[in-house]
Amino acid sequence: MIYRTHNLGELRKEDITKKVTLSGWVATKRDLGGLTFIDLRDREGVTQIIFNPEENADLAEKSQKIRTEAVIKITGEVRERYSKNPNMPTGDIEVFVEELEILNNCDVLPFQISGEENLSENMRLKYRYLDLRKPKMTRNLKMRHKMLMAIRNYMDEKGFLDVDTPILTKSTPEGARDFLVPSRTNEGDFYALPQSPQLFKQLLMISGVERYYQIAKCFRDEDLRADRQPEFTQLDIEMSFVEMEDVINEIEGLAKRVFQSVTEEAADYEFQRMEYAEAMERFGSDKPDIRFGVELKELTDIMKNCGFKAFSGVANSGGLVKAVVAPGSAENFSRKVLGEYEDYVKTYFGAKGLAWIKVTEEGVNSPIAKFFSEEEIATILARTGAVAGDVIMILADRAKVVYDGLGALRLKLGKDLDLINNDEYKFLWIVDFPMFEWSEEEERYKAQHHPFTSIKAEDMDAFMTGEMDKVRTNSYDLVLNGAEIGGGSIRIHNPEVQAKVFERLGLSEEEAREKFGFFIDAFKYGAPPHGGLAFGIDRWLMVMLKESSIRDVIPFPKTNKGQCLMTEAPSKVEDGQLEELYLKSTYIPVK
Amino acid sequence: MIYRTHNLGELRKEDITKKVTLSGWVATKRDLGGLTFIDLRDREGVTQIIFNPEENADLAEKSQKIRTEAVIKITGEVRERYSKNPNMPTGDIEVFVEELEILNNCDVLPFQISGEENLSENMRLKYRYLDLRKPKMTRNLKMRHKMLMAIRNYMDEKGFLDVDTPILTKSTPEGARDFLVPSRTNEGDFYALPQSPQLFKQLLMISGVERYYQIAKCFRDEDLRADRQPEFTQLDIEMSFVEMEDVINEIEGLAKRVFQSVTEEAADYEFQRMEYAEAMERFGSDKPDIRFGVELKELTDIMKNCGFKAFSGVANSGGLVKAVVAPGSAENFSRKVLGEYEDYVKTYFGAKGLAWIKVTEEGVNSPIAKFFSEEEIATILARTGAVAGDVIMILADRAKVVYDGLGALRLKLGKDLDLINNDEYKFLWIVDFPMFEWSEEEERYKAQHHPFTSIKAEDMDAFMTGEMDKVRTNSYDLVLNGAEIGGGSIRIHNPEVQAKVFERLGLSEEEAREKFGFFIDAFKYGAPPHGGLAFGIDRWLMVMLKESSIRDVIPFPKTNKGQCLMTEAPSKVEDGQLEELYLKSTYIPVK
Repeated sequence: MIYRTHNLGELRKEDITKKVTLSGWVATKRDLGGLTFIDLRDREGVTQIIFNPEENADLAEKSQKIRTEAVIKITGEVRERYSKNPNMPTGDIEVFVEELEILNNCDVLPFQISGEENLSENMRLKYRYLDLRKPKMTRNLKMRHKMLMAIRNYMDEKGFLDVDTPILTKSTPEGARDFLVPSRTNEGDFYALPQSPQLFKQLLMISGVERYYQIAKCFRDEDLRADRQPEFTQLDIEMSFVEMEDVINEIEGLAKRVFQSVTEEAADYEFQRMEYAEAMERFGSDKPDIRFGVELKELTDIMKNCGFKAFSGVANSGGLVKAVVAPGSAENFSRKVLGEYEDYVKTYFGAKGLAWIKVTEEGVNSPIAKFFSEEEIATILARTGAVAGDVIMILADRAKVVYDGLGALRLKLGKDLDLINNDEYKFLWIVDFPMFEWSEEEERYKAQHHPFTSIKAEDMDAFMTGEMDKVRTNSYDLVLNGAEIGGGSIRIHNPEVQAKVFERLGLSEEEAREKFGFFIDAFKYGAPPHGGLAFGIDRWLMVMLKESSIRDVIPFPKTNKGQCLMTEAPSKVEDGQLEELYLKSTYIPVK
Repeated sequence: MIYRTHNLGELRKEDITKKVTLSGWVATKRDLGGLTFIDLRDREGVTQIIFNPEENADLAEKSQKIRTEAVIKITGEVRERYSKNPNMPTGDIEVFVEELEILNNCDVLPFQISGEENLSENMRLKYRYLDLRKPKMTRNLKMRHKMLMAIRNYMDEKGFLDVDTPILTKSTPEGARDFLVPSRTNEGDFYALPQSPQLFKQLLMISGVERYYQIAKCFRDEDLRADRQPEFTQLDIEMSFVEMEDVINEIEGLAKRVFQSVTEEAADYEFQRMEYAEAMERFGSDKPDIRFGVELKELTDIMKNCGFKAFSGVANSGGLVKAVVAPGSAENFSRKVLGEYEDYVKTYFGAKGLAWIKVTEEGVNSPIAKFFSEEEIATILARTGAVAGDVIMILADRAKVVYDGLGALRLKLGKDLDLINNDEYKFLWIVDFPMFEWSEEEERYKAQHHPFTSIKAEDMDAFMTGEMDKVRTNSYDLVLNGAEIGGGSIRIHNPEVQAKVFERLGLSEEEAREKFGFFIDAFKYGAPPHGGLAFGIDRWLMVMLKESSIRDVIPFPKTNKGQCLMTEAPSKVEDGQLEELYLKSTYIPVK
């Protein structure tokens, strides 16, 4: 090692008088009292080095050429620091330079590494290699490594085999849109990039692997939204000879280990559990943030005979009337503010309106109060638990609109009213999701999770008789502070049940064969009972690090449009490359 | 855990009289003396279970329905085994079944799991999920896991960060052919799948990560050969502030750790080292198998004035005359056999002929002996060290033909004459590769490794004055038993040297910019000295497990034509999918 005897977070009082060699980046440089001070930085820390023209005039002269973020190597003597810095691990010492080599100087930077300026994300992404020098980003890289390593150690200890499955594979039927890869050696054919290793991991169970995991890259060519990446990293797990409880047990241990390895904060490791139906009823969400209340309250039954047509109409035609209470906000929520909340549920969730009732010491205050009897008002207050100073917000609509609208409104109130303790971490299992989901667009039932999800034993009768809405599955999502970080299910291992599911989904035997042919076949040759789940590594890490953008926990992320601003991918290719692939571009560039 | 109290490799004498629940696959089933015996198998082993109609007639009846490779769950009592099997860890016990559940029966299998029949590889790949049940394949999966985990633990201990780089990225200039992925959201543009994370890992060094590793999927759309896969797994490593010795030190520790974790065999951990030039001279190969001799011997100088025109002509016009000695084969190598060796070097390596001299107690025996004086024959014997019973084989041709031809002939002789001890493992570093390589096809110098490879300090003058053939690099390949398992180099970190390399490669400043634009820019902002290497995981594992096909160590490999026979990827897609990507297929299927 000619470049260093110590790293830059290492030197202490005990090292004083030692001759050391250090290498790193020039974080800051300043002249003071005739001396030149440099904070030299590497991955492990910062050490102050000093050039003294009285000790070595040539060297001090040479040091003037060094620019911020240059890479240098120095040799010098460790001395006790004149003005100690207790905030720095190396703050007791400084190194007086005796030899200097400028390994690489630095041009004018596009932005300051240590700067606090409000940098555009595009600049950060274009110069990602500089952005990653920022202490926060270096920490995030380290934490990502720690998280991945904690997962691997846990899975290894528990007897899971790391098995890698192909990236060049086949289209996933019934999934999102695939990325395609034209094949040159198989003329006219295409590979697809995997949306998840779902089929492969189930096949590995049929192979007898019994316990599988993989940290896998997955791909979805979806219309991009904020915080969606075309490629993402998934922890994929599958186990044989297990029931839901077995999976949940193993995973709680994993979640705890990962959390402890990444954050130094305390989590509530009680892992609450809630049925999907209850989560929807109480929180309007299948991934509720349970760090605060503001739960949804049921008013449908008491609105059936009320004098307010907008409510009674909905209540009598299969819709829902539900409320949330914004605590202590009666004085602060002006009509204007309340109008903004109404717009929020109208614009984003398609609600037709949001009613409100302010509760004061003198009684209620609401544009709709006149439609209700005193007794009805009393019932509303009792149901919602609202007290003086609160505002009751009521939504009446189709179930989906009410759940989505109030679920989102609840989260917004949580933030706006500062009801969430950001230092708190709460894990929650949501279980027993419905098997089927009615698709308004396609006017047919679809699998809510995927068609391989097993049905709860107690709902098997409902399944056999076709009561689609009553059929629940052995399924589970793990939610952390309102973010779904993972989810999965026990799978169907019985070929007859699988065939019946396809039938219920409206697939003929031929259609099922065409879509899932080789996979259905595999189940004939001794498939064990099995189940598993998948975690979104990026989102999970983001929640643990309290980052607001998923791009801050991914080493080289893409923009919302799927571009890498650093490499300028995707980009044009030559016609010859397409010809080899038996393709022609139909794109006509707009001039 | 309702499915098992023990796994199937676990029960011992001490467990006798216990009531246990077991689940697994029916490996074999046979009726004997009125009883039914099943060898029940899971990932951990095999346990014998017994159905006794005298104890439970119904159960014995039900057991008749069980077919080989069915998945069953049983509960029963552990008893001392009647006829113990000392070759089985569970051979002291057997379990008498009291309850049986057939979890999934098994159809007629396409092939027997325990069978030894010579199965076609295509059948194995089509039913990969069954092929993986074979003990050898299960072992290979476990060993792959062990290898990956050993790597990760070592890298973690040594402070390397696991950083994942994108799969959807940009074309690699100067590389092999890229796989392309059309972008839907960026009309007319294409991502490329990475051939390696080379640029990203160097950028991570510029980011200050200092120690990076990744087990990465890499992709090359090459014309497929045996043992080439379109996607492969690479251990990718990069370090900052290091020289070649630092990298080699760290990697020797890794190679040792991995070897010990995967095999129980002994390796020679001396890690010999040889310059590229010496390896070519002595073995005609940059990845010599040093477990046996048969080295190449230099005859060029002594052939310059000999009477055999074919040799003197080559020797006097810049070619080489070299020999290998096939020990003790004079009696066995008939003219026919020698003709086959000649055809081998002619057909595969373009040699014009292969001369031979048999050495006997009575003197030499060779069609070309008449062209040489006694003194010349004596010199040839002295140079080659051949003794009575040996055959000297001589090739005279262009250097490349001689090296390739004799290098391959040497390996063939090693196998044919059984000179290689297959239980021996020898690591060898090949170092100091040439920087430039003359391309006959393109009539220009190309980078032998890649244009970012740094030049040896002592060859800098030759580089500056343009003596292309004399310039060696700080580069190193790790060879295990004649297989290149990894390789890398110290990179150029100085922008001026990098610019000069591009110039020597015939790239104008504009061309270099166009190809490597953002990458060249990055070096302006404080690039540290750095270097690294990459290992081919699949090949490395193959060598350690003594497998002859790379497909036996990859969980889901593709055929030589790049097809997955199990999923039938690649496959047709719908026109609509191409339309969305602004593409049209030009492929016209041959009827």
